[in-house]
Amino acid sequence: MRPIGVIHTGHKDKEGTPIQAKANSDGSGWIEVYDEFVEGISDLDGFSHIILLYIFHRSKGYRLKVVPFLDNRERGLFSTRAPNRPNNIGLSIVKVEGIEGNRIHISGTDMLEGTPLLDIKPYVPQMDDRKGARIGWLEGKIHNMEKTYDDGRF
Amino acid sequence: MRPIGVIHTGHKDKEGTPIQAKANSDGSGWIEVYDEFVEGISDLDGFSHIILLYIFHRSKGYRLKVVPFLDNRERGLFSTRAPNRPNNIGLSIVKVEGIEGNRIHISGTDMLEGTPLLDIKPYVPQMDDRKGARIGWLEGKIHNMEKTYDDGRF
Repeated sequence: MRPIGVIHTGHKDKEGTPIQAKANSDGSGWIEVYDEFVEGISDLDGFSHIILLYIFHRSKGYRLKVVPFLDNRERGLFSTRAPNRPNNIGLSIVKVEGIEGNRIHISGTDMLEGTPLLDIKPYVPQMDDRKGARIGWLEGKIHNMEKTYDDGRF
Repeated sequence: MRPIGVIHTGHKDKEGTPIQAKANSDGSGWIEVYDEFVEGISDLDGFSHIILLYIFHRSKGYRLKVVPFLDNRERGLFSTRAPNRPNNIGLSIVKVEGIEGNRIHISGTDMLEGTPLLDIKPYVPQMDDRKGARIGWLEGKIHNMEKTYDDGRF
């Protein structure tokens, strides 16, 4: 695995960073795509949203039970979006605000400054939406997503 | 990066495999979670859908322009979901049919048999849906998704 670019968001500290991209629609940033990969972002300007896969580069180690941001009891790691994982890959769906050369301007950011980018995929509702999905332990807690920020627990 | 498990789908050949999980809702399979990670799937049974990140283990190399399954002209790789990528990570959202010990029974599969699993994340519409997204070159072509199968081009 080697980065295809780097994500700039200005979030230099974990504390205070939004816990989900969708909870920070006003938060803007930009992606610097490394020169050798720029040809691959052609045609991306027709998509309003993209899926970013990236490294949680400031995560260290993992535990299989964690107290996630939106709960106060331990949950199985894979039932959470916690950043400390056996393979520390993050996933965020962000809005494309514009593309200039090797820069993709985005909004809806929840990554830390300098996050190494692994992949960009087009977001396609017809592929990626599942209406009416059950959300387990998040039921009754998800409404707190937009007022909850990283408190540095991971 | 090291696998946390392996995905079984019975799709031994690229040719004829569905190109998207959502286009194959009847297709069933199961995930074998390796013993050392099983504690991490607790609480997952409350979620109807999960996001799988995995290795496109039969992809080899990549080109930055490809003719994707649903088109007949070249597109920038990162505007497609093609499996041959600089970091060959695949993403599928599948339905959880049941969990028994270290086995997660799933439906809606588009992976090849024996796919190495990197991560499981809970699918949460409130985090992961973007309504009304524009879909670029896929506009007018996405309706062919359910009748299009892998033809071995990658």
